[in-house]
Amino acid sequence: MTLNTPLETPAVLIHRPQLLANIARMAQLAQDKGIKLRPHVKTHKIPEIAQLQLDAGAQGITCATITEAEVFGRAGFPDIFIAYPLHLSDAAKARLNAFPGKVSIGVDSVEAAKNLAGVRADIKALIEVDCGHRRSGVLPDSPELAQIFRALGDRYAGVFTFPGHSYGPGNAASAAAAETTALQACVEKLGGGLSSGGSSPSAALSSGIDEMRPGVYVFNDAQQLDSGACTPEDIALTVLSTVVSRNVAERRVIMDAGSKILSTDKPAWIAGHGFVQGHPQLRISALSEHHATLFWPAELELPEIGAQLELVPNHACNVINLVDEVHVAGENLSWQVAARGKNS
Amino acid sequence: MTLNTPLETPAVLIHRPQLLANIARMAQLAQDKGIKLRPHVKTHKIPEIAQLQLDAGAQGITCATITEAEVFGRAGFPDIFIAYPLHLSDAAKARLNAFPGKVSIGVDSVEAAKNLAGVRADIKALIEVDCGHRRSGVLPDSPELAQIFRALGDRYAGVFTFPGHSYGPGNAASAAAAETTALQACVEKLGGGLSSGGSSPSAALSSGIDEMRPGVYVFNDAQQLDSGACTPEDIALTVLSTVVSRNVAERRVIMDAGSKILSTDKPAWIAGHGFVQGHPQLRISALSEHHATLFWPAELELPEIGAQLELVPNHACNVINLVDEVHVAGENLSWQVAARGKNS
Repeated sequence: MTLNTPLETPAVLIHRPQLLANIARMAQLAQDKGIKLRPHVKTHKIPEIAQLQLDAGAQGITCATITEAEVFGRAGFPDIFIAYPLHLSDAAKARLNAFPGKVSIGVDSVEAAKNLAGVRADIKALIEVDCGHRRSGVLPDSPELAQIFRALGDRYAGVFTFPGHSYGPGNAASAAAAETTALQACVEKLGGGLSSGGSSPSAALSSGIDEMRPGVYVFNDAQQLDSGACTPEDIALTVLSTVVSRNVAERRVIMDAGSKILSTDKPAWIAGHGFVQGHPQLRISALSEHHATLFWPAELELPEIGAQLELVPNHACNVINLVDEVHVAGENLSWQVAARGKNS
Repeated sequence: MTLNTPLETPAVLIHRPQLLANIARMAQLAQDKGIKLRPHVKTHKIPEIAQLQLDAGAQGITCATITEAEVFGRAGFPDIFIAYPLHLSDAAKARLNAFPGKVSIGVDSVEAAKNLAGVRADIKALIEVDCGHRRSGVLPDSPELAQIFRALGDRYAGVFTFPGHSYGPGNAASAAAAETTALQACVEKLGGGLSSGGSSPSAALSSGIDEMRPGVYVFNDAQQLDSGACTPEDIALTVLSTVVSRNVAERRVIMDAGSKILSTDKPAWIAGHGFVQGHPQLRISALSEHHATLFWPAELELPEIGAQLELVPNHACNVINLVDEVHVAGENLSWQVAARGKNS
């Protein structure tokens, strides 16, 4: 796990063999199921990686915001779905009307659907459905579903959901089942339309839907590992970090990667703030802005000050949004995070 | 709390009256105590705000990393302390040797002190001391203290500590006392040198030290409020956000600010992921990358879809590191976050 590299730390590394294997595995899984794959590029925000996903068979991409989608639209990606319940300002409408290429959007209220007046007619909308995550989206048995459908008129293209309650150990199967039930019920009620679902933990269990939109599978992270969605060998993104301080008596080790690169995503069901690659049990016990605190187990040799180690974050999507570039490990190559910070 | 503004959301707003009052209050507090003020600019990463701090009487600034310090050095700030236990690579030494202006650094090990060979002689070093936070720094009674002092030789300039255990309700007084005891013991043991401490929650209680380095006081946030270090009226940074989805029956409101702008910093002692400005009890109950989930209390009118509200984050320092610019509320003015992402 110790590298000999000239990179200044902390730095985000992408391991190409793992990245390509993750992309190929999900593409094969989707193909085997007969479900179209529309990966969510919020995870990487990097056109080069989105192109690898298309090359492997993905049919379009998913974005979270208009500005994120614009980056990929300008880069030539031909079919983009913004999987978010947008409520458009006048400026946002103007940006969508000038969008380079094909784009579709999400809505989950009559207000937002009516507010689409003045938006280009070829920009279709999917209604967001809540299949159990209890975030945005209408419930399948809600009267709002048909009201939004009517307000959309010819703009209606289908329904989508995010089974986010698939995260956490043992949750994937029930979330995937809820996804299928909810989407099928809505399509039946509305007399047709695309059904779009999918999350990385539930993707292997999705069925009976038209397309899926997993994101974090390209990199994987501690959350995916603890959710049972990947193995330690499937992790493609790490943060290279240097040991800067030690308390030898307490076996406390401080590394120079903190919350300003690892982020602080930590659901209650996950232990620690990430782990040392190769040692999934060696978790970061505390995280400051520029310090990761680790207590080194007695059976492992304490690293020297100056040693470089790779850390696996809890949530890769938030790491990507903290850096302007990533480095392809073992290659003299960096990729710009072209859509970093594109929140609106 | 509803604004009429043309900004696309989510967007970081800085409220100038609160900002100036916070800066003036800390400057007065330091002057009254006879303690030099060297604010930590990691909180804002904006030269315009650092200049306001100097104009109000700060004597130098504090940075967290070399690249962050370079941004302020190039902007003409004349006296910068990098309050971090640096272990320098050859490239980092070259950057320090080319540093524009006066800079000092932190060390907390004999290894790091010896590793300063080849660094410009005018770049002084302060030894980091652990006064109870149990992160980096040597303990005051550790034999390493004198060993590092000897390894530094003429480069030695003093000792510094971060009383980070001041965060959390009721912790400030004991942390400030521990800070004074630790720094005074070290200076006495080493026969002199600067003593540097301070954190925003403990600043009002610091005593018997030469300088202090609070950071987040310029903005304040939910952590400072819950730590007892500020009132709701002292909050200078908010995130303007739009209501994009509602479940009226459950009074659930979804806003378009998520972890990619609010960050997910959430110590165990704080409730929620931030709150609605003007309603400190109305906390964000869940945070996704682009969704904040709030359950609206019965006594408050449910906001309409499309309404804009200001959210107060848990930790302003991590919000700043997520955006390229901030907007001065009510003025047609943006400031670039010049040192955003400068982690190494």
